[in-house]
Amino acid sequence: MRSHLLSVLVTNHFGVLMRVTNLFSRRGYNIQALTVGETENPALSRITILTEGDDNRIGQIMKQLGKLEDVHKVVRLEKDRHVVRELLLLKVTADPGELDRFEKLAVGMGAKVASREERSLIFELTGESDQVDRLIDAARSAGLAEICRTGATGMQTGDITILTA
Amino acid sequence: MRSHLLSVLVTNHFGVLMRVTNLFSRRGYNIQALTVGETENPALSRITILTEGDDNRIGQIMKQLGKLEDVHKVVRLEKDRHVVRELLLLKVTADPGELDRFEKLAVGMGAKVASREERSLIFELTGESDQVDRLIDAARSAGLAEICRTGATGMQTGDITILTA
Repeated sequence: MRSHLLSVLVTNHFGVLMRVTNLFSRRGYNIQALTVGETENPALSRITILTEGDDNRIGQIMKQLGKLEDVHKVVRLEKDRHVVRELLLLKVTADPGELDRFEKLAVGMGAKVASREERSLIFELTGESDQVDRLIDAARSAGLAEICRTGATGMQTGDITILTA
Repeated sequence: MRSHLLSVLVTNHFGVLMRVTNLFSRRGYNIQALTVGETENPALSRITILTEGDDNRIGQIMKQLGKLEDVHKVVRLEKDRHVVRELLLLKVTADPGELDRFEKLAVGMGAKVASREERSLIFELTGESDQVDRLIDAARSAGLAEICRTGATGMQTGDITILTA
């Protein structure tokens, strides 16, 4: 089963998030990750959902989402025509020498130091999911204490703006 | 009314997201932004919610969240002891000369170019909400076409890992 990223443009009203999550729950569709945030239009929010299934199932999900009240548009983000990014915060706790070693590695992998204390470091990394996974794997042997990832969000490339109602 | 960031550790099961959004909807609490993603423990997910209200109301929300099935821990992230970050994707469409001018400005504000075509640019920016707001404001006069922000997520600094069950 492949993962798919759906971008759903909705009215900026808390009830619609409930309707969307209810739909997934009622139908037994899994949500691997979800973000909801503001758009360029204050009246609209965008919900980005990472879910999995074959093409037939994804087609059904999109059709049912499109029927919900306050849902204006449902788009599937394809990798080759879209920018897809995820934000990771990752904390490592270790002695100062080990922290220094891991810091060099993490910075080389594109991470930035967000907070440093004597025995702990928090890194931020924005990238594609593979890049995020690689940093987490690298941290496992260096004192990985905590991770927080937002889930993927994305936008179509080029000058067509498909998601504005 | 102040904004508050709540970090909620839950069982990694789609029904719990529905229960959380239902609670906000039923009680009339607004969700300004929400992210849900994996944690360092595959059995657990973390939901981060930006909401607003006075201390009394936030206390009530946290208490009610804590009573929900599959909710393990509810923590309020305070700015001085936490790293709080948000991811923005921002698209500008303009003629090439204007794109070049805005690119310099955006990179100076900490953004990175995620995609470039002849008449459009997508930037990614990870930072605190104020920094994200400033880039959006700067883009308004330069051909802002689309924004997608994940909503804030955060982690406590120091070597105490409060959010692992």
